[in-house]
Amino acid sequence: MESIQPTPRTKVVRHRERGRYEPETIHAILDEALICHVGYTLDAQPYVLPTTHARIGDRLYLHGAIANRMLKTLKTGIPVCVTVTLLDGLVLARSAMHHSMNYRSALILGVAREVSDEYEKLAALDALVNHVVAGRAAGIRAPNALELRTTTVLRLQIAEASAKVREGPPIDDEADYSLGCWAGVLPLELRPGAPIDDPRLPAGIAVPQQVAIYERPGWRR
Amino acid sequence: MESIQPTPRTKVVRHRERGRYEPETIHAILDEALICHVGYTLDAQPYVLPTTHARIGDRLYLHGAIANRMLKTLKTGIPVCVTVTLLDGLVLARSAMHHSMNYRSALILGVAREVSDEYEKLAALDALVNHVVAGRAAGIRAPNALELRTTTVLRLQIAEASAKVREGPPIDDEADYSLGCWAGVLPLELRPGAPIDDPRLPAGIAVPQQVAIYERPGWRR
Repeated sequence: MESIQPTPRTKVVRHRERGRYEPETIHAILDEALICHVGYTLDAQPYVLPTTHARIGDRLYLHGAIANRMLKTLKTGIPVCVTVTLLDGLVLARSAMHHSMNYRSALILGVAREVSDEYEKLAALDALVNHVVAGRAAGIRAPNALELRTTTVLRLQIAEASAKVREGPPIDDEADYSLGCWAGVLPLELRPGAPIDDPRLPAGIAVPQQVAIYERPGWRR
Repeated sequence: MESIQPTPRTKVVRHRERGRYEPETIHAILDEALICHVGYTLDAQPYVLPTTHARIGDRLYLHGAIANRMLKTLKTGIPVCVTVTLLDGLVLARSAMHHSMNYRSALILGVAREVSDEYEKLAALDALVNHVVAGRAAGIRAPNALELRTTTVLRLQIAEASAKVREGPPIDDEADYSLGCWAGVLPLELRPGAPIDDPRLPAGIAVPQQVAIYERPGWRR
């Protein structure tokens, strides 16, 4: 895919070598991350709230109850920023100054629109479940008419967007390489524990494969 | 400690039973989380950027290069929102509607002020390193005069703040408990991999204990 043209608002200026503008990179970060942080402004106060998301093509979907203040505010057509961050490691340098982190982050700016088409809304709600556990939407009860009416789904085009990626070892001042302290990277990974059955789960229902051997897109193990 | 009085801006309205206002809870979330997401508004566009933070008492510190746009914007005295989210598990219900996540999040609203006092600035920079690896600031090269001049440190009072916590199994509609699908929680944990020596590390320098046996405050294992 062709790179997304950076704008003055999305171009990575600090550490420009970390900027990424290929949709593949941005999409992969969105797909691996379980949550995003949504920023909007209300009465001059910015708010940042965590929520789940899902991507279909170049559209990002958010959802929640119709009474949800964030969604009610966003669907009036105000500017929004959705940011996703994957933390990959601690970069432990020889000086305080050069401590850093390895990460992959993506940022999308735009205006979120309410999804009114029922087909798109159902597809988005399926995608939101499948984003968390691949294939899960097919095995559970789908939203009923009341749930659909009381759920807001918003769509944000992944059009004005960029990613920022840091990887590799610390970069120390030349004079500091002779210092006697340890330096390197401590990798960090989000990992699943053992699944916990719901207390009311009837006997004989096994943990499905996608939960028992849980993987995010992009996990290499 | 006494609870922080919620304001109309920080009071948890959706799922009010998840709201937490004790400073201990808010502080513990800030201390465990390695990164925060900072929201600010510039030319009517909200931005949300990930960065590291550290807490000393009821003050949260952020830092970066003096040329950093976010810090330059924040120190003009505009409203900011700092949000921290710890993802604890996937809540896999019997219906799409009741899928959720277990998490602990904290949100701080206010205005960030530049730290000009050199003693406070050095303490904050130490805290920022020690936040990542406990005790590490003592074993590395401290910031020199040039680094101090070219680094901005901002302070945000943890005064208008709240936390939101979800834990436990899915809560399904009563009629759905008889469905044959698996339901439960898949715990998620951020975990360290094996430390990677810097390629230029001289022979004979061992990985320090705090890195080899890495733990965040609040990790139970």
